[in-house]
Amino acid sequence: MADSSGKDAALFATHSKITAAERACQNGHPGCVVWLTGLSAAGKSTLAVELERELFRAGRQVFVLDGDNLRHGLCSDLGFSPAAREENIRRVAEVAKLFAEAGIICITAFISPYRAGRDLARRITPPGQFLEVYLSTPLAACEYRDPKGLYARARAGKIPDFTGISAPYEAPLNPEIELRTDQLAIGDCVARILARINALHTPA
Amino acid sequence: MADSSGKDAALFATHSKITAAERACQNGHPGCVVWLTGLSAAGKSTLAVELERELFRAGRQVFVLDGDNLRHGLCSDLGFSPAAREENIRRVAEVAKLFAEAGIICITAFISPYRAGRDLARRITPPGQFLEVYLSTPLAACEYRDPKGLYARARAGKIPDFTGISAPYEAPLNPEIELRTDQLAIGDCVARILARINALHTPA
Repeated sequence: MADSSGKDAALFATHSKITAAERACQNGHPGCVVWLTGLSAAGKSTLAVELERELFRAGRQVFVLDGDNLRHGLCSDLGFSPAAREENIRRVAEVAKLFAEAGIICITAFISPYRAGRDLARRITPPGQFLEVYLSTPLAACEYRDPKGLYARARAGKIPDFTGISAPYEAPLNPEIELRTDQLAIGDCVARILARINALHTPA
Repeated sequence: MADSSGKDAALFATHSKITAAERACQNGHPGCVVWLTGLSAAGKSTLAVELERELFRAGRQVFVLDGDNLRHGLCSDLGFSPAAREENIRRVAEVAKLFAEAGIICITAFISPYRAGRDLARRITPPGQFLEVYLSTPLAACEYRDPKGLYARARAGKIPDFTGISAPYEAPLNPEIELRTDQLAIGDCVARILARINALHTPA
């Protein structure tokens, strides 16, 4: 970085970073965001893990963002007020975008009940590289599953602002994929998403 | 995800995500964080871009986090007060950790003047996967370069809390690598970091 003039020529060099096309060429696939949305217990995390495993087995670059790795880290300063939830989803969207830029298939698994948050995520991701996957499993089915007993506690008034019970879920109007996880086998759910990922265009 | 019992067996499956070792095996290298720190104009961004290019050419998974892609996105809500800068670095650290978990070599290029922020980044990254790279180019050399005229403006009192002029820079006490970018060619700087990256142990 030193040069004979004392001034540093390299500092004025163009910051020619690696392009999305170069990354896609090297990886064999473009980066993208697979945004899973749906009620609690619709199966987002389960599906995310299975999808990640299948993609990894196929040699893809893939990573899951979920409550486990976000709420304890990047979003550990956030509570559960409406404003905090909105900020949580905004950060998820921004991080997912970074992973997509890095050429990775980034799967997000959050209820993300508001259209505004999901639309932000879509807007900041490169065009065509965002797949909204709506797990449209009805409330009754989710509540029947209730693997963590959250619905029971919400019905008992012990969890305020619980999506589907005491807080709204705004269903996607035009998702790339809709899945009834109460009617489909998990392998079918994974296969449908894989087909859409495989059809993504490599960025020019 | 549906099963004959109505209750969903998959939901109770172990969330066996892909391990760091599996990712390292597939990529041919472990994920890690290469944390560049130093004064403004020390050459952090230039070095980050060159290092990224070399790693990419060698077929590695690599991504740069810098002001360009963080300040306009994830950290767009933050100003430049001491508290906001601290939060900015915390988020950089958390995102870098996620990239390392995803098996990627994540290069960060921020002044990051406080030990506490850098130590947090080290603490949350898996052991042995954090490389602190201190660009120890003296203030006089950085100020002489002054490619954006920031030092001149800071000296004129037009930029408050400017690191090295009116705000402290806490030099690393025990960085993995120290580089005088005013004395070394950029190729030498890159080579030294590459050697350390190549010596990283693959996680068990």
